[in-house]
Amino acid sequence: MSTVTSQPEMDMDIFNTLESNVRSYSRSFPAVFKKAKGYKLWDVNDKEYIDFFAGAGALNYGHNNEKLKQSLIKYLEQDEITHSLDMATVARGTFLRRFHDIILKPRQLEYKVMFPGPTGTNTVESALKIARKVTGRNTVISFTNAFHGMTIGSLSVTGNEAKRSGAGIPLSNTVFMPYENAVENVSSIKMIEHFLENRSSGLDLPAAMILETVQGEGGINAASDQWLQNIASICRRFGILLIVDDVQAGCGRTGTFFSFEPARIKPDIICLSKSIGGYGLPMALTLIKPEYDIWEPGEHNGTFRGNNLAFVAASEALDYWKTDDFSKGIQTKAAEMTHFIQKIIEEYPELKAEKRGRGLMQGVACAKDEISEKICGEAFKRGLLMETSGPKGEVFKFLPPLTIDEEGMTKGLNIIDESIQAALKQ
Amino acid sequence: MSTVTSQPEMDMDIFNTLESNVRSYSRSFPAVFKKAKGYKLWDVNDKEYIDFFAGAGALNYGHNNEKLKQSLIKYLEQDEITHSLDMATVARGTFLRRFHDIILKPRQLEYKVMFPGPTGTNTVESALKIARKVTGRNTVISFTNAFHGMTIGSLSVTGNEAKRSGAGIPLSNTVFMPYENAVENVSSIKMIEHFLENRSSGLDLPAAMILETVQGEGGINAASDQWLQNIASICRRFGILLIVDDVQAGCGRTGTFFSFEPARIKPDIICLSKSIGGYGLPMALTLIKPEYDIWEPGEHNGTFRGNNLAFVAASEALDYWKTDDFSKGIQTKAAEMTHFIQKIIEEYPELKAEKRGRGLMQGVACAKDEISEKICGEAFKRGLLMETSGPKGEVFKFLPPLTIDEEGMTKGLNIIDESIQAALKQ
Amino acid sequence: MSTVTSQPEMDMDIFNTLESNVRSYSRSFPAVFKKAKGYKLWDVNDKEYIDFFAGAGALNYGHNNEKLKQSLIKYLEQDEITHSLDMATVARGTFLRRFHDIILKPRQLEYKVMFPGPTGTNTVESALKIARKVTGRNTVISFTNAFHGMTIGSLSVTGNEAKRSGAGIPLSNTVFMPYENAVENVSSIKMIEHFLENRSSGLDLPAAMILETVQGEGGINAASDQWLQNIASICRRFGILLIVDDVQAGCGRTGTFFSFEPARIKPDIICLSKSIGGYGLPMALTLIKPEYDIWEPGEHNGTFRGNNLAFVAASEALDYWKTDDFSKGIQTKAAEMTHFIQKIIEEYPELKAEKRGRGLMQGVACAKDEISEKICGEAFKRGLLMETSGPKGEVFKFLPPLTIDEEGMTKGLNIIDESIQAALKQ
Amino acid sequence: MSTVTSQPEMDMDIFNTLESNVRSYSRSFPAVFKKAKGYKLWDVNDKEYIDFFAGAGALNYGHNNEKLKQSLIKYLEQDEITHSLDMATVARGTFLRRFHDIILKPRQLEYKVMFPGPTGTNTVESALKIARKVTGRNTVISFTNAFHGMTIGSLSVTGNEAKRSGAGIPLSNTVFMPYENAVENVSSIKMIEHFLENRSSGLDLPAAMILETVQGEGGINAASDQWLQNIASICRRFGILLIVDDVQAGCGRTGTFFSFEPARIKPDIICLSKSIGGYGLPMALTLIKPEYDIWEPGEHNGTFRGNNLAFVAASEALDYWKTDDFSKGIQTKAAEMTHFIQKIIEEYPELKAEKRGRGLMQGVACAKDEISEKICGEAFKRGLLMETSGPKGEVFKFLPPLTIDEEGMTKGLNIIDESIQAALKQ
Repeated sequence: MSTVTSQPEMDMDIFNTLESNVRSYSRSFPAVFKKAKGYKLWDVNDKEYIDFFAGAGALNYGHNNEKLKQSLIKYLEQDEITHSLDMATVARGTFLRRFHDIILKPRQLEYKVMFPGPTGTNTVESALKIARKVTGRNTVISFTNAFHGMTIGSLSVTGNEAKRSGAGIPLSNTVFMPYENAVENVSSIKMIEHFLENRSSGLDLPAAMILETVQGEGGINAASDQWLQNIASICRRFGILLIVDDVQAGCGRTGTFFSFEPARIKPDIICLSKSIGGYGLPMALTLIKPEYDIWEPGEHNGTFRGNNLAFVAASEALDYWKTDDFSKGIQTKAAEMTHFIQKIIEEYPELKAEKRGRGLMQGVACAKDEISEKICGEAFKRGLLMETSGPKGEVFKFLPPLTIDEEGMTKGLNIIDESIQAALKQ
Repeated sequence: MSTVTSQPEMDMDIFNTLESNVRSYSRSFPAVFKKAKGYKLWDVNDKEYIDFFAGAGALNYGHNNEKLKQSLIKYLEQDEITHSLDMATVARGTFLRRFHDIILKPRQLEYKVMFPGPTGTNTVESALKIARKVTGRNTVISFTNAFHGMTIGSLSVTGNEAKRSGAGIPLSNTVFMPYENAVENVSSIKMIEHFLENRSSGLDLPAAMILETVQGEGGINAASDQWLQNIASICRRFGILLIVDDVQAGCGRTGTFFSFEPARIKPDIICLSKSIGGYGLPMALTLIKPEYDIWEPGEHNGTFRGNNLAFVAASEALDYWKTDDFSKGIQTKAAEMTHFIQKIIEEYPELKAEKRGRGLMQGVACAKDEISEKICGEAFKRGLLMETSGPKGEVFKFLPPLTIDEEGMTKGLNIIDESIQAALKQ
Repeated sequence: MSTVTSQPEMDMDIFNTLESNVRSYSRSFPAVFKKAKGYKLWDVNDKEYIDFFAGAGALNYGHNNEKLKQSLIKYLEQDEITHSLDMATVARGTFLRRFHDIILKPRQLEYKVMFPGPTGTNTVESALKIARKVTGRNTVISFTNAFHGMTIGSLSVTGNEAKRSGAGIPLSNTVFMPYENAVENVSSIKMIEHFLENRSSGLDLPAAMILETVQGEGGINAASDQWLQNIASICRRFGILLIVDDVQAGCGRTGTFFSFEPARIKPDIICLSKSIGGYGLPMALTLIKPEYDIWEPGEHNGTFRGNNLAFVAASEALDYWKTDDFSKGIQTKAAEMTHFIQKIIEEYPELKAEKRGRGLMQGVACAKDEISEKICGEAFKRGLLMETSGPKGEVFKFLPPLTIDEEGMTKGLNIIDESIQAALKQ
Repeated sequence: MSTVTSQPEMDMDIFNTLESNVRSYSRSFPAVFKKAKGYKLWDVNDKEYIDFFAGAGALNYGHNNEKLKQSLIKYLEQDEITHSLDMATVARGTFLRRFHDIILKPRQLEYKVMFPGPTGTNTVESALKIARKVTGRNTVISFTNAFHGMTIGSLSVTGNEAKRSGAGIPLSNTVFMPYENAVENVSSIKMIEHFLENRSSGLDLPAAMILETVQGEGGINAASDQWLQNIASICRRFGILLIVDDVQAGCGRTGTFFSFEPARIKPDIICLSKSIGGYGLPMALTLIKPEYDIWEPGEHNGTFRGNNLAFVAASEALDYWKTDDFSKGIQTKAAEMTHFIQKIIEEYPELKAEKRGRGLMQGVACAKDEISEKICGEAFKRGLLMETSGPKGEVFKFLPPLTIDEEGMTKGLNIIDESIQAALKQ
């Protein structure tokens, strides 16, 4: 009999007692979760939750997606390769082929695929390393409110002070520039151009710029196509590599597979993780333009570059992208979400709110202090998972699975409406 | 029908064409692997391989361990939580409880458990961060031939030049000291004591020392119990935190669950990954003495801290440690391995070989140039996976699954014997 | 007989042959200089030069100022202490007393005086060190086009790429912000405020801001009083120390002893060097608000902190500041200079010129390529020393001794006028 | 009338009140000094002191050396150039010629002469910069107990913890190796060879090694000729530049002009300062092998590279080196000093003393706690300036002017003998 299921009942005590103080979501969402399907979760007391959080973007295809699940079970039953480092396996090869055929080729994108280790921070670290190797330069430009990960390389390009101070050492080789519209009346593009053109600006010519097209942790700030094109053009002009960290905004979150497709730019390096594994299984990719793929064999490695269960689910999930239907569906739901947000901004002027984001990665920034935190708390009580983002947690953000249906969306938005009212009454 | 299994036939071309140059094991082991069980793998042409590599130490319980597999399938079938960041789930709670009951408590070890992200480098980065935060100091002492990971923090404490140069930036805040016996006639302990006692040595008082009790990548160098005790004692004396990176040597690889048990030391921080997930699934733990667990909530985070499939397999795998039997079995096999190594050292003096390592983490260091590489190549032809380690790849190393049986061991060692002969003839 | 004067004739060969390639002024001013007095120099061929360069600001009181010279000779003749590290000497004590009585007290300024070693870069390094020690922080904000010195600490806060690349290592712990008006339509103050207020901006709370009120090497950019006051106010608000590097703009260069007097700010730390020694002798001071003077004895040191000849000349030179007359005289000459600059801007529109600077630290920025370089070359031919500044050498700058008389000024400006015409004809 | 001499009487109050806490020698030697000649000083109360300190090595030719003084006065009287940055002047050219003719040529040494700014730390910074530029590498090897200066670049290669912590930032790009005999039974040479040969040692191939042949601040540790030759040979073998910091040990201090002459090595870069200016005036040189002089013009600069008074005294002082007599005289006095030290070691076994150093740079290391400090204190009371060195101030060191006569030496040594007795009685 399975060990796991034979255990006695479980409450939060075990986590409070045995786990490190670093735990966080088990504080915001104080329940022991047991089961999940699609856009729903249940805790050990069978309470149901609607998921507007989606594993921080790792569950774009919903929890325990049935088609992916059957592939996984079959794969396990057949004793196919589970762990393989970067050895060649059927599952890895299948993923490579399908990713090429379904994603890259139709978009006329040419990239070599690197498996950098199965987390977002692994792909960011590998991207920074190869950009520095290609250019022979040290400095990387990042942007205000950026979030790229928690290992020292990625943390160096992350803006959040609380996270940065965890490093315990000065974070170097990085320069931060204002993201589009970050500073009122300051043109981020002009700033960057000046610092690059003026060779007494103190900015050493950078190896790369790294950016999120929609800043997830930083407050659901969506850059315009024009800004992205300007950045891409500056990078070309100065021989700087452009890295798009599409870990959260990619894999369809904004309506297209890559978040930068509407801007028609072709980054030099692309970071993918979170939903690329399809089923919430650890996986990450670094896509590198062939001319920059100058790695020596093994120059970057890691034990879990061959998480074959993730390859299986990832390959299966790519089916969603064989036609335009999935993308169109996301856009329809996004429009509904936008409409709802505009409505509540009007209805609740006391929130001093503004809309943020695009696709199914939208949020509401509130100037009213700590209200977003309270709204999320009220939502949790009502059975909805939702979290805040932004430097002061001033944004409550909507990140449902992309596969959510009409019923789920309506239900979720209704709970949010009620939660706003409750929070405002507090 | 599953996408994965409906694909056309597969050869190495797809990897050479689509994957980054950084791939390495698919070069040393040029076959497309399809299936695995216990200590065996099969490629797409049904060729069988014996595994003396064990996923670089991630497959201590063998490939697709049947008992673990059944737990995983059941868990999937029941739609239990798959992905959960650091939310509380039944699977996580179960693992915490069992890890405490089966591993920590009987060994009188008190540690808070941190889930730092599911790779070895994640746990190392988190260990370095908390050590620096606790002490308010920057410098970390690492050792010659150390390998701790490929993200900038971990890479800074890794000795290998080829890996380090991939960083593209100077790696700082680290000082390297000689590992035990690294330099002939130089006492590593005396060196360290001098640098710490002499406050004009240029060594700023360090936050931590980080070490592997048996250096895996660095050449299967096993530290003596006495050396480990001396290091622990120096750390106590100077208020330096001792971090044991047990990513490869832990989880039973050397015969006890933690590699440092025979030395009777209690590190301040312990890094676990690789085989902790039981089934080769991405998972890592950072164990922190309660008094040093001063993390702020969320100060270190990551999307895949809640890989529940890994928790399920990990919990199940802990059954191996309920009694002494598993440990004793490892030691018996280790003795056989040692005996074999001594035999070949005698029989093949032209290897100029010496024995390395302990437990089921042993190897043969050859002074003869490039012979180890050739032996591994010959072994692969004969159906055995085995890799080299050490700064010049001068060691061929034996890392079979701990669950290997007598037949597998004998077969594997015989292939090695043949491969040595073949390599020497070249 | 003196060794020096008994040498054979001298030409540039000896410098080209024996001195390092790093030499620079001997390339722009290719003559062997022998004698100097006031605002004039003579080379070995007795050619006379008017000095609009003033030792890059180190000769505010003119060459070989007679009153200072007599003090020096008398001091030497009496065998008073020449070299004393930071021992107490009569000359050092006299300087301390007079600097307090004549400079600090009448301006209601309270500072402890540090002798950090006798060069500009020494005082900057000491200022950065004490600011970091006081605050316990690493980062220092510097500004585009800043120049603070060539040792690693000072070079890290210097903007010029050519200088920075000489470091051979990444320069860290520094963030550059735009100086006032550096970027068209970008408010430097708003930028800085945003980066400080937004705790996800990637800017770690800085220890200090360091700035020149008039950027000498950076293009004679003069900050407005308002901007300086805003910066001072931001510093106070965020607990950041304000360091004014008055090495070039101080000692009367802009009309007041300290360049920041018109802005009525009181920096936390002030760096002085160049003309503080009066006679062009190496000397530097770091002025520290008493509450921040938390140095341990000897925590910063240096062999030449006790250059007593400089103390003697420095003490004597302070006589210029006993009344307002000297200051008023500078302002009168400055007005004449401004008038001249405005005239040539009008007369020579093809220069596409704009006026820069204030006091006797003014210049002309030309949009026309390389014309400033040519003008200086023509001026040298005509017997005037003048150099360019700015990132592209686009500014020709006027830095005569503050003691220059009407005749010298007129003669110098006339040569400049002729040189412009000649350069434009090229 | 001179300002300086017209001041009222002076005591320590003025320094305690107006000067920064960082002052140090005015604490160890609490007197206001007024006059000096040769090996003697006098304070404002006409108390006479014998100088066994010599400006920490900056006064090798004695205080106010008469011949040098006459040159300086004449030079001043003739209004020759005082301050010139790196413009060509007669005084600079004369020095270059004489340094080449008297010092370099007879020793068959070929170096380009760089004027890096007039302090020891300036020359060290310039040496590190050019070594990194030449090799394109970051790391520099320094040695335990090294002292090279207080600006960030030099401080990074300085061992003393109290000095290092003044930086306020982690000091990077440096690795410390044990100096000869620093660690009992550990071969410094073997350590270095291992770290360089083993390309998994964590030591990135360094740009340079920097060392003092006799460590002044570090405890008067004199390296053997053999060790220096071994280091030079390792540097050649690995393409590492050898920098000898001869700031304190050079200019005859150990008996030859360069301290490394007996070892017959030719460093790639040599740092000179302190006594090179002859009269205690700020001056420094960086000597660079011609093939490594790849500076761009102005890539390193500084306002006081043209301290012509120092050039005049320096040129004059070179007369001491025209024959062997001066060198032989130093060696005779050194022998007397050695003899005295051996005698007191025998006579006062309670000091637990050992002899250190060579030439006129010798000292006595005492294992007895704080006795050296006390001995220096007693000596000061008796009219002798002498300071301690070493990580714990455990060495009292003898650094008289090289020009000291028999009477001065005898008198000084007698005072030391009395001071030891007095200190032991305390």
